Amino acid sequence: MQHSDILSRFGLTSSTGAGLTARSPVDGSTLATVAETDAALVPDIVANAARAFEAWRSVPAPRRGELVRLLGEELRAAKEDLGRLVSLEAGKIYQEGLGEVQEMIDICDFAVGLSRQLYGLTIASERPGHAMRETWHPMGPCLVISAFNFPVAVWSWNAALALVCGDPVIWKPSEKTPLTAAACQVIFERAAARFGDAPANLSQVVQGSRAVGEALVAHPGLPLVSATGSTRMGREVAKSVADRFGRTILELGGNNAMIVAPSADLDMALRAILFSAVGTCGQRCTTLRRLIVHKDVAGKLLPRLKSAYASVAIGNPLDDGILMGPLVDADAFKAMQSALEKAKAEGGSVTGGARTLTDRFADAFYVTPAIVEMPGQTEVVRHETFAPILYVMTYETLDEAIALQNAVPQGLSSCIFSTDLRETERFLSASGSDCGIANVNIGPSGAEIGGAFGGEKDTGGGRESGSDAWKAYMRRQTATVNYSSALPLAQGIKFDVG
Amino acid sequence: MQHSDILSRFGLTSSTGAGLTARSPVDGSTLATVAETDAALVPDIVANAARAFEAWRSVPAPRRGELVRLLGEELRAAKEDLGRLVSLEAGKIYQEGLGEVQEMIDICDFAVGLSRQLYGLTIASERPGHAMRETWHPMGPCLVISAFNFPVAVWSWNAALALVCGDPVIWKPSEKTPLTAAACQVIFERAAARFGDAPANLSQVVQGSRAVGEALVAHPGLPLVSATGSTRMGREVAKSVADRFGRTILELGGNNAMIVAPSADLDMALRAILFSAVGTCGQRCTTLRRLIVHKDVAGKLLPRLKSAYASVAIGNPLDDGILMGPLVDADAFKAMQSALEKAKAEGGSVTGGARTLTDRFADAFYVTPAIVEMPGQTEVVRHETFAPILYVMTYETLDEAIALQNAVPQGLSSCIFSTDLRETERFLSASGSDCGIANVNIGPSGAEIGGAFGGEKDTGGGRESGSDAWKAYMRRQTATVNYSSALPLAQGIKFDVG
Amino acid sequence: MQHSDILSRFGLTSSTGAGLTARSPVDGSTLATVAETDAALVPDIVANAARAFEAWRSVPAPRRGELVRLLGEELRAAKEDLGRLVSLEAGKIYQEGLGEVQEMIDICDFAVGLSRQLYGLTIASERPGHAMRETWHPMGPCLVISAFNFPVAVWSWNAALALVCGDPVIWKPSEKTPLTAAACQVIFERAAARFGDAPANLSQVVQGSRAVGEALVAHPGLPLVSATGSTRMGREVAKSVADRFGRTILELGGNNAMIVAPSADLDMALRAILFSAVGTCGQRCTTLRRLIVHKDVAGKLLPRLKSAYASVAIGNPLDDGILMGPLVDADAFKAMQSALEKAKAEGGSVTGGARTLTDRFADAFYVTPAIVEMPGQTEVVRHETFAPILYVMTYETLDEAIALQNAVPQGLSSCIFSTDLRETERFLSASGSDCGIANVNIGPSGAEIGGAFGGEKDTGGGRESGSDAWKAYMRRQTATVNYSSALPLAQGIKFDVG
Amino acid sequence: MQHSDILSRFGLTSSTGAGLTARSPVDGSTLATVAETDAALVPDIVANAARAFEAWRSVPAPRRGELVRLLGEELRAAKEDLGRLVSLEAGKIYQEGLGEVQEMIDICDFAVGLSRQLYGLTIASERPGHAMRETWHPMGPCLVISAFNFPVAVWSWNAALALVCGDPVIWKPSEKTPLTAAACQVIFERAAARFGDAPANLSQVVQGSRAVGEALVAHPGLPLVSATGSTRMGREVAKSVADRFGRTILELGGNNAMIVAPSADLDMALRAILFSAVGTCGQRCTTLRRLIVHKDVAGKLLPRLKSAYASVAIGNPLDDGILMGPLVDADAFKAMQSALEKAKAEGGSVTGGARTLTDRFADAFYVTPAIVEMPGQTEVVRHETFAPILYVMTYETLDEAIALQNAVPQGLSSCIFSTDLRETERFLSASGSDCGIANVNIGPSGAEIGGAFGGEKDTGGGRESGSDAWKAYMRRQTATVNYSSALPLAQGIKFDVG
Repeated sequence: MQHSDILSRFGLTSSTGAGLTARSPVDGSTLATVAETDAALVPDIVANAARAFEAWRSVPAPRRGELVRLLGEELRAAKEDLGRLVSLEAGKIYQEGLGEVQEMIDICDFAVGLSRQLYGLTIASERPGHAMRETWHPMGPCLVISAFNFPVAVWSWNAALALVCGDPVIWKPSEKTPLTAAACQVIFERAAARFGDAPANLSQVVQGSRAVGEALVAHPGLPLVSATGSTRMGREVAKSVADRFGRTILELGGNNAMIVAPSADLDMALRAILFSAVGTCGQRCTTLRRLIVHKDVAGKLLPRLKSAYASVAIGNPLDDGILMGPLVDADAFKAMQSALEKAKAEGGSVTGGARTLTDRFADAFYVTPAIVEMPGQTEVVRHETFAPILYVMTYETLDEAIALQNAVPQGLSSCIFSTDLRETERFLSASGSDCGIANVNIGPSGAEIGGAFGGEKDTGGGRESGSDAWKAYMRRQTATVNYSSALPLAQGIKFDVG
Repeated sequence: MQHSDILSRFGLTSSTGAGLTARSPVDGSTLATVAETDAALVPDIVANAARAFEAWRSVPAPRRGELVRLLGEELRAAKEDLGRLVSLEAGKIYQEGLGEVQEMIDICDFAVGLSRQLYGLTIASERPGHAMRETWHPMGPCLVISAFNFPVAVWSWNAALALVCGDPVIWKPSEKTPLTAAACQVIFERAAARFGDAPANLSQVVQGSRAVGEALVAHPGLPLVSATGSTRMGREVAKSVADRFGRTILELGGNNAMIVAPSADLDMALRAILFSAVGTCGQRCTTLRRLIVHKDVAGKLLPRLKSAYASVAIGNPLDDGILMGPLVDADAFKAMQSALEKAKAEGGSVTGGARTLTDRFADAFYVTPAIVEMPGQTEVVRHETFAPILYVMTYETLDEAIALQNAVPQGLSSCIFSTDLRETERFLSASGSDCGIANVNIGPSGAEIGGAFGGEKDTGGGRESGSDAWKAYMRRQTATVNYSSALPLAQGIKFDVG
Repeated sequence: MQHSDILSRFGLTSSTGAGLTARSPVDGSTLATVAETDAALVPDIVANAARAFEAWRSVPAPRRGELVRLLGEELRAAKEDLGRLVSLEAGKIYQEGLGEVQEMIDICDFAVGLSRQLYGLTIASERPGHAMRETWHPMGPCLVISAFNFPVAVWSWNAALALVCGDPVIWKPSEKTPLTAAACQVIFERAAARFGDAPANLSQVVQGSRAVGEALVAHPGLPLVSATGSTRMGREVAKSVADRFGRTILELGGNNAMIVAPSADLDMALRAILFSAVGTCGQRCTTLRRLIVHKDVAGKLLPRLKSAYASVAIGNPLDDGILMGPLVDADAFKAMQSALEKAKAEGGSVTGGARTLTDRFADAFYVTPAIVEMPGQTEVVRHETFAPILYVMTYETLDEAIALQNAVPQGLSSCIFSTDLRETERFLSASGSDCGIANVNIGPSGAEIGGAFGGEKDTGGGRESGSDAWKAYMRRQTATVNYSSALPLAQGIKFDVG
Repeated sequence: MQHSDILSRFGLTSSTGAGLTARSPVDGSTLATVAETDAALVPDIVANAARAFEAWRSVPAPRRGELVRLLGEELRAAKEDLGRLVSLEAGKIYQEGLGEVQEMIDICDFAVGLSRQLYGLTIASERPGHAMRETWHPMGPCLVISAFNFPVAVWSWNAALALVCGDPVIWKPSEKTPLTAAACQVIFERAAARFGDAPANLSQVVQGSRAVGEALVAHPGLPLVSATGSTRMGREVAKSVADRFGRTILELGGNNAMIVAPSADLDMALRAILFSAVGTCGQRCTTLRRLIVHKDVAGKLLPRLKSAYASVAIGNPLDDGILMGPLVDADAFKAMQSALEKAKAEGGSVTGGARTLTDRFADAFYVTPAIVEMPGQTEVVRHETFAPILYVMTYETLDEAIALQNAVPQGLSSCIFSTDLRETERFLSASGSDCGIANVNIGPSGAEIGGAFGGEKDTGGGRESGSDAWKAYMRRQTATVNYSSALPLAQGIKFDVG
């Protein structure tokens, strides 16, 4: 299928005017240019969202859920097309593109169910003739900032919940993936058309660079900012939003580790390492970056791992059988090489990591995945490099392994491979992994939408997706209703004017 | 009872060395000086807390609850003493001092119950042979910053939950109320002594001025900062903590309104206004500051209100029958007068608000409570002045009244007096009050501890006390355990190395 | 559309062999005969379900949810057809038939969301190195017994939840509505075919009379029996299932009242009375049967009500504009007449209630709806008669009205029309209505699926549909995992062998 | 301490009039006679409870919690006394008596926390201008039937929750333990006196035999019956209460097993077996009765177990160092001997089980604990005998072990000793243990009060204590409030009279 054919499925064209250039990491070609939003329009965009909010917040939540149900149906219908476009624009393999769309579908199903819940509480009051309750109300327009590596799922995680919760969405996608964003908006509009009477501007996409993003982030009309990306970006967002007492959901860097214990099923561990370290060319926030192997197992595991790494099929991510596509761009390649240099300087022994397929893809950046055996958890290891680099360290005691796992600034995902209950429960305990996600016999990536997704420390503390993550999209109201004819005070206070 | 007698109940003395000066708003006298903590000691204090955390987080929560139960018992035993000291140091009437201690007791009881809950979730996983669950783990040392007006309750709201959740507490009380803080620490130590093996430094009090507070706020070893006080202070805290990806619970300014509808029970409304506008001399974060009266009712209500205001017994808050004590200090008095001036300039008609009892209390600041009839919601009305000033406005339609209620920067507390179900439910709906607290036929102040306490917008968004406010003191862990011998990927992704 | 055309949409034929006779209340005609299940086959049917359970319980719940999602899609596709068949076989108007199918669709959507929840708890343990949790597991095959008046929705309420919860379903529909049951099974099979690998016999329909029902109810292989119908039937089921320690969800009789207070919006009350008293020809379990009107309002309300009753369009329920169809059969007509006689004997004054349209429908039982003004709540009023009879009583005080409302054996649904908050909240309080459903300014019928549906007292105590009603379909497991190397006992018990 | 001294602590005397004879299993002596309640008084007792209910249901739940808090304080004060009385009257060792009182204290603490929760839900409604919510209201008087083996804890589990939930309690204790019941009532009255204004008859004790129990069970004024005891008794209760549509919490027989896997920590397993098989002389509902040992481990475990059994200190349960006291009476001894005979006839090899200490306690029934190695799970093994008999079987595969565990009529408690995660999680999964309680590396007995306690199948299905077990003591109300001026119908139904 031609690139332009994929675009045309969403009514997009390979136009090449002014604006953002959408470039495919697959071959470095320009896919299209996309009109950039002028930062001066931000007030209008926010005002549009505010108007949509006025109407949407009073639409009953189950009816709001119906829109999201239709969105899920449209996503089902467009699954292959959108999966392919994701692969083309973000460079991940088609299977992962499909998986990403499946996550969108899953979150829609989940949100539809939520639309008849959004449970608050009725609470026992200490005063006679009083009823206390907590209700969750729509919050206001929600700004979603997403990164190139999950160009569509992150939006849907936020949008499906936000819409059901009564909040319009403004989406600022990565400058590297404007087309998938445009395609999602097309899909949303298909759903809205079937829905009938959704207010205008429930979903808006703002294409652009940093300036427009900053203007949005600073705008007091957006009480909620959900931002996925680098720790550096997240810190700026956090401070800007804090300055106006807004709320953030931050999904920032990860530096995810796997502990491989002596009792681990090594076949499973091997498979998990491969998927989570090499998948998406090491460019997932949950990519496995640190392997902490028990010293008695390292000798068995590492040779098999290197051998598996050598057999990974690298190439056009849209082709069947390919497991690893390109890095997103030249900068990513440079950052990777720089990290590998640094690792060597810090005592690391590097296997793989070189550029490849340059003959076929002169303008794209394919690499072999790198294994770096480290003498310890040095500075480069504690830093997140968005590339397929796996640092390997060994340990002797579980305490030591957990301490290594925790001794990085990030706190997103983690896992242990072990069949020993005492080890696995210890890993999941209060004195175990300090990450938001802690898995047992599963790699750090590939979360289900039913759980809350996100992490602590420099990962930013936000939670998206399942569990009660929806509460971040709503405001909480604690109400006490006195239906008696008396006015008792709480805590039994006496206060009477004679 | 002599001032020094009250102090001696907690082993405190009226020493007058260097340090913070504790001054009684009752008569302006100096109660004692309290040693100030050097900001240079902050790293040690945090390290102490970190050591306490290492131990405390692995103590089972129900056992942690036992410490809080004992704290509750000690508070019961010290209720009158501490209530009196609160009255003496913060200037609120003794009845309110007792009420504040009762709140401390209530939250301890509540936290004890929580200690056998702290419920996470088990969640249905999409993969065979997998178990998904969400667990809440202790977060780390918690910094509590409190204000003079609730000099002890705010600490207890945070401390009772934090301790049960596994978090040590560092408390930076207001510089205006060091003695009540010292007394609470004494009470805590009584409980800890009975408990037996609590780690050292579970609760630390840091007395001091802004510098030490800032050093604490900026310290990366304190993942949670719960700060109560002004919007200005809160903004600084929010940004400082955001810069290090910490978590905040902000309880900042309120500008709380009451809507009095035509169907209101005016007797009840009158009593509620009085307690919530005049109580604590108008220095509660939930003090009633804005009265939005239906035009058909104003004529009946205002004369009665003025008459009631005139009969409020003002005087030494420790005396029986007194309903209103002093402002906290000269600055508070100046701010009040300045606001009244501004109100006049903006068209307001002022009744009351003058200084009084100057003969008896030359160094203290007693005032008569002020009613200010305003032509509209002008700038001064939209600003929170911590004093007994009640701005009165009239309205014609409920839509208008709700719009007035919401058109201020703050979002803490609100209420409506009406017996018309359609009005009251509308007020509590998604298009009603935008505050965290919305009451019906109760004033804006005097929350029960069973509900979540806090508000939106410039109030800071934090929630303390009941409902699931405890989650702010813990970190969430989403775990998926694969106990099968296969490794299926979420979203049905296929990824296999040959 | 011909009767047979409707049947043919589901592959059903107007066959007339041996078996149950499906008869249309619309015109008394025979629609088809349906093969009856031999009670001797019950053990095989249960064994089939047990085999399905073995497989289904280990299918991940979100995957089970996918089957229910497909069922929802098939129901959407068949909505008009099934709605029409419901109207034809049960005699309710087409609009209500559509509404019933919509409820099926709604519960499917809801259950799909649940399939990623089915939340249990993680719980704080009092012992170090221990993790406590509560998990909900599939229960086993679920028997659903349904009544003629909601011939399809009741099955779906149970089946959608049961299937998501991991339980196969055996359905014993009313002998009066075998065809709609057969149609639902056809729709289920369409969904199962699309799903692909559902185990055989996940859903089984057992057509038959009392004997086969009793054999099913008594069978120990069916841990859960969800039965909707008369109190008499429910009592037998309850005792039979109790004898084998099974679990029941009983949805039995209702004797639902509306209180009309002086402040009521009479236009709304009138409309609500009409829908809830006359709809489904008074044959809903939530039908309004008792009107408790304040004496000051009765004079205004009753004449308008009688006038509205006179204008109700009675006729073929499949025709446009018709609001009231026939009684289900001759027995129903006899029971109605007998109740009206009794009411007269007890002092009642009857308006309406006679047979009508006999010329057009000689073999069907159309009646005019009856209003019966009663001097008090006599015996006939306390009894549920499944017919469009509305007993009217007056009251003076709310206490009296609530006492009347509660003084019947049944406890299903209730409502108040009032705009006075104090009245409405009192009605909803601990000393208010004793029913499972208590509405304000809504009639007693027409529940949303998001709430739990059911009632107390002779209504049987069961709950279906929303909230945590799903827990009835699962078994609860409380697990404590000791991952330490010590064995402390709960409650600090010492027990050591030297 | 003399028997009479223990009694006197509760104002009880060793009177010997007519009535129930309280006999100590320790030495067979008569402790006192207790007046028996005439079954003819049951209506009055129920009427008393109904009056208490009228008042208590409207007392705010946190205030009700205060009574339970005081009850907890009184239990703390009486812990040693009551523990000793339990030991004296029920024959369990003093340590277990203390543990039982500690459980009473724990549940009081827990219930106090609940008293500010009793959470219902606010729920998203599908209709504009509608609010849906679910509230839990007091249910009515609660009948508690308890057994001799936990003569006080079972009452407190029920009473603490029932009282907080607003329900008065009527307690029918075992005829074998009237004195501990009387003592609890004394303790309750101490708390009530401190509380001040509790209604009369909140707690009533009915001493008596089967007739009075049956009259209570059948009485329609008791909507909730919580019965602990034999399966035979439970079945009668279940049917009687079902006949009047009451609700039951049944805690009946257990036949609890432990699986010891090859990876088990045998030291821990040994200790757990001892406590759970021998403790309370094998007369707990959670006593370990079946040991399912992997064939590779049996050879190591059994000799150690027999040796440990031989060293168990048997004797006066009030003496220090004693681990095993007497059987409750001669009937218990006969039943034990009969079971051992049957076991031999079914191929079992018996070690221990004989009467002992006959010289010292001629009128009491002390036995040595029995280990019975069985060739398979024969009929006697599937039956619960309330005595210290441990049946031992071996297994080869986990599937086989789980099948054995599940193949008994009872479903209360179960456990596995294994350090293999795959085994332990499988044991806890949908296809694992079918019991209400499933532990890992803990014996089957000794539950914490934070979890729900109870089991499936012939155990009766009830749940007490923690989690949301409190819901069984309340009635659920689903309310929808229409605060709009329109009357939309659910499911979008159209129904309009012209």
